[in-house]
Amino acid sequence: MDKVSIVKIGGNVIEDEVALGKFLDLFASLDGLKILVHGGGKMATQLASKLGIESKMVGGRRITDAETLQVITMVYAGLTNKNIVAQLQARRCNALGLSGADGDTIQAHKRPVESIDYGFAGDVDGINSTLVTKFLETGLTPVFCAMTHDGNGQLLNTNADTIAAELAIGLSNVFETILYYCFEKKGVLKNVEDDNSLVEHLNSATYRQLLADGVIADGMLPKLENCFRVLNKNVGKVCIGHPSMLASENELFTTITL
Amino acid sequence: MDKVSIVKIGGNVIEDEVALGKFLDLFASLDGLKILVHGGGKMATQLASKLGIESKMVGGRRITDAETLQVITMVYAGLTNKNIVAQLQARRCNALGLSGADGDTIQAHKRPVESIDYGFAGDVDGINSTLVTKFLETGLTPVFCAMTHDGNGQLLNTNADTIAAELAIGLSNVFETILYYCFEKKGVLKNVEDDNSLVEHLNSATYRQLLADGVIADGMLPKLENCFRVLNKNVGKVCIGHPSMLASENELFTTITL
Repeated sequence: MDKVSIVKIGGNVIEDEVALGKFLDLFASLDGLKILVHGGGKMATQLASKLGIESKMVGGRRITDAETLQVITMVYAGLTNKNIVAQLQARRCNALGLSGADGDTIQAHKRPVESIDYGFAGDVDGINSTLVTKFLETGLTPVFCAMTHDGNGQLLNTNADTIAAELAIGLSNVFETILYYCFEKKGVLKNVEDDNSLVEHLNSATYRQLLADGVIADGMLPKLENCFRVLNKNVGKVCIGHPSMLASENELFTTITL
Repeated sequence: MDKVSIVKIGGNVIEDEVALGKFLDLFASLDGLKILVHGGGKMATQLASKLGIESKMVGGRRITDAETLQVITMVYAGLTNKNIVAQLQARRCNALGLSGADGDTIQAHKRPVESIDYGFAGDVDGINSTLVTKFLETGLTPVFCAMTHDGNGQLLNTNADTIAAELAIGLSNVFETILYYCFEKKGVLKNVEDDNSLVEHLNSATYRQLLADGVIADGMLPKLENCFRVLNKNVGKVCIGHPSMLASENELFTTITL
């Protein structure tokens, strides 16, 4: 079974030109088949602000009204995605920029309104693993922005962590999938203030122990719950850490298995 | 030999929601393999203006400085391209949005500075016909925005008519290619004021005659020169007219052959 690495990067890497360049060097050098998923971050907020559109966030999630969706489409699918694609091409990595609407690669539906109306936010229904597999086998490296569509002409703002997870799950029937979540910390830390308290390996048993010890920080809880959900759906392993974890000589990150 | 229709639409269609919807109905219903190429138009100018960026045009061509390139990337590759893709998906046409950087589909170089510095404007070197053919054979309908790249990480603003022409030329070794240029008139008119003066067929001989008669309007000259250039490079035929020419029952447009 071929291996596919699915790497998710967030706003902190995208917004820093030097950090992005370093990351893309590492990503382009990564052996084997690979997929990049990128969020958007502050650039959308900055553009919205320049255009006089107020950014509304609830619990860290953006409320996507019609005007905000336009801004997001411009920044995520336009500026960020195409710059990453062009920079990967310069590194001889044959990148193909995609939203979920392109090739109908990611189907989603507008999140139903319960206590909060998130607007044009998408919940993923599934991925077109046949087409994504074909892209990979053609030697292309898909680069997904955090947008999907509902099949009826509506684009939807969609969480990049979720897109990466669904791609890893959807491709796990065809490939051995490894999911990399890059963020600003070295990985799961026993003490968030102390980079030397890294947990290098986690599995269901050690995770339960850390939970019982009350060691897992609040912000980390949903991330880890998501990791175990993904692992329970045939994804081989999940790695969490600083973007530098993609360097083969670096072993200072957290690897999570079932 | 399979047939491929390459259709170019301009700003006047893209900017009008109703006209765009009608056009996409026709395009989605078009039989056989097809490619859409779209320009950008006034939306980029409007966004630039809102952001306080001055739009500089020389001879109808945009001077693309670094800030303008960002605006164009947001509007062409983001907003316009993804909306067209999502709307084609709603019409069960499996669209794949592309810039020339995606899959390295269109290689270009920055236009050398002679009397005018066009900034980040691209002149096309060639297209990746192998990959575009693979997309078509996979059942995908490529939707190109008017952007290319130089292979060294630089995106380039590139004329949509030229991209359509180069795709038609590049694919003519594998397919019978037909190029459709949609614009606001019915086609080539003997009298620009009179829609009934349509020239339905043009070839090298009748074109020379019209030139001798001084019938071809100034604005039409470069368009027609480009058409014959394309025909001389193995493209089967070029059709010029209103977007409604894509309707099978409509024969009121100009067909140009060698």
